[in-house]
Amino acid sequence: MTRPDGVPARVTIVEVGPRDGLQNEPETLGVEDRATFVDLLTDAGLPVIEVGAFVSARRVPQMADSAGVVGAITRTPGVRYTALVPNVRGLEQAHAAGLEEVAIFTAASETFSRRNVNQSIDETFATYADVARIAEALGIRVRGYLSTCFGCPYEGAVPPARVAALAARLLDLGVFEVAISDTIGVAHPGQVIDVLDTLAPRLPVERTALHLHDTRGTALANVFAALGRGVATFDASAGGAGGCPFAPGATGNLATEDLVFMLHGLGIETGVDLERVLRASRFLEGQLGRPLPSRYLRAETARRSRDGRDARA
Amino acid sequence: MTRPDGVPARVTIVEVGPRDGLQNEPETLGVEDRATFVDLLTDAGLPVIEVGAFVSARRVPQMADSAGVVGAITRTPGVRYTALVPNVRGLEQAHAAGLEEVAIFTAASETFSRRNVNQSIDETFATYADVARIAEALGIRVRGYLSTCFGCPYEGAVPPARVAALAARLLDLGVFEVAISDTIGVAHPGQVIDVLDTLAPRLPVERTALHLHDTRGTALANVFAALGRGVATFDASAGGAGGCPFAPGATGNLATEDLVFMLHGLGIETGVDLERVLRASRFLEGQLGRPLPSRYLRAETARRSRDGRDARA
Repeated sequence: MTRPDGVPARVTIVEVGPRDGLQNEPETLGVEDRATFVDLLTDAGLPVIEVGAFVSARRVPQMADSAGVVGAITRTPGVRYTALVPNVRGLEQAHAAGLEEVAIFTAASETFSRRNVNQSIDETFATYADVARIAEALGIRVRGYLSTCFGCPYEGAVPPARVAALAARLLDLGVFEVAISDTIGVAHPGQVIDVLDTLAPRLPVERTALHLHDTRGTALANVFAALGRGVATFDASAGGAGGCPFAPGATGNLATEDLVFMLHGLGIETGVDLERVLRASRFLEGQLGRPLPSRYLRAETARRSRDGRDARA
Repeated sequence: MTRPDGVPARVTIVEVGPRDGLQNEPETLGVEDRATFVDLLTDAGLPVIEVGAFVSARRVPQMADSAGVVGAITRTPGVRYTALVPNVRGLEQAHAAGLEEVAIFTAASETFSRRNVNQSIDETFATYADVARIAEALGIRVRGYLSTCFGCPYEGAVPPARVAALAARLLDLGVFEVAISDTIGVAHPGQVIDVLDTLAPRLPVERTALHLHDTRGTALANVFAALGRGVATFDASAGGAGGCPFAPGATGNLATEDLVFMLHGLGIETGVDLERVLRASRFLEGQLGRPLPSRYLRAETARRSRDGRDARA
């Protein structure tokens, strides 16, 4: 298999299952189980793992005691562990827990920002200016999420120029990377190309990550389009766990398994062991008590159960 | 939205739900319900609909009395109605039922051919030589399916050169189009490009169709890769119904909704009304008594149920 032209030789997968996945499942897992999930993901070779969020436990009970999770995991040298922080308090908690990387999040849609965090986009930037300044003083790297870059459940279409302007503003704050996010999973590959081409003059491709949801089945097509534009960092969630409770109709992040299966097929290195991702997803299925939506996980589960029956027959 | 370079302006969707979809669901629907399903698909603007299969009702009860289905549907001028035929007897039945187009099927894997139809690949070609000759005399167009072009559940990898040689043999029989099929849904976009590039000297792109299953979530990525190579005919099944009971681990055709959503997003014309495809899928869900896997269908169902609750709140 030869890699198609222009496609990067190596891709970094940012595993967001323990945060964006679990945060958007109805069940709340305990600290031990979340730490075990992170350890299984470390064991699978994921190079970056978002382990939790330092947010209000009242508002997001699924992320309660993220400091406890950070304390309970077994850290492997070279793996980057990170967490979402909404403000300086969250940053300080993440720092106290021993994290050297955090993520902040704003939106490309004013209505989404207000409904999601009860702040205007400008207000979130005011907050994050403080976060970024203190993070720099503490030697903590900051990633920026930009939500609803391909469409907003309240406003509909989002102009790519606005996405580019806000990505540049995040860059000005000092973030090392912007995760251009399809929060509600409406993007299609032509739009991905349009947005990336509009972004290119403002956000270097090596600082561009894509955060996709597979709500309408287009996530891998969008990855493939983005690979052709040189994007080499993609977010994914083991098993395809998660969604977004604030976004009507959003169901599930791009599954890590599905992404790894396609990337390896394309001859792209990820450092991830697909079998071990399945192990992490099966652990999570056991904790949640139901199947997760990853197509690869479902196909492999069906195949193995069939092979098991064949073996007995 | 501008169409990406090299992507066709118009795509023909071959709706295989009433055949490849229903044939691989455990339930057997009656003639009336299958005809209603076809009529809803006609109403949705699908330009080609595979309405059934003239095969042994003992072996494939889901396709029993396909002649009855053909007799019960309301045919719209300009829409092509077709059916699968395994042999001359099936061709004669399809002709007697009034069809002007049929499809034959062979495999790129010897083991799959033997397990699927109990014939070697050469034996299927001997059968189809007769079918093609008689079809020509009757003025019936013949399409050829080539299964397991991207991998076989028994043999594993399938060499693209073998796919190209067999596609050329089908063309020599007189088929107007070859559906290069990922029967078990293992293809990834790099492989699609490899196979299409190997095929190109033997099978003109305007005679090339892709028949994809979304087993591992890569179907739309594969479509996007194929569009870049000029392929303009894709098979799909409303709701993502079907799979392949003879192929371990295969689960579901590419969903018509998911395909249409992406193609329209790319600015590609299909003539298909997405809302009306959902109507056909919902009818089928009612008959089967369970949800179908199309991601777009699931997302829209969730969104509308949520909007309904919002409206009541």
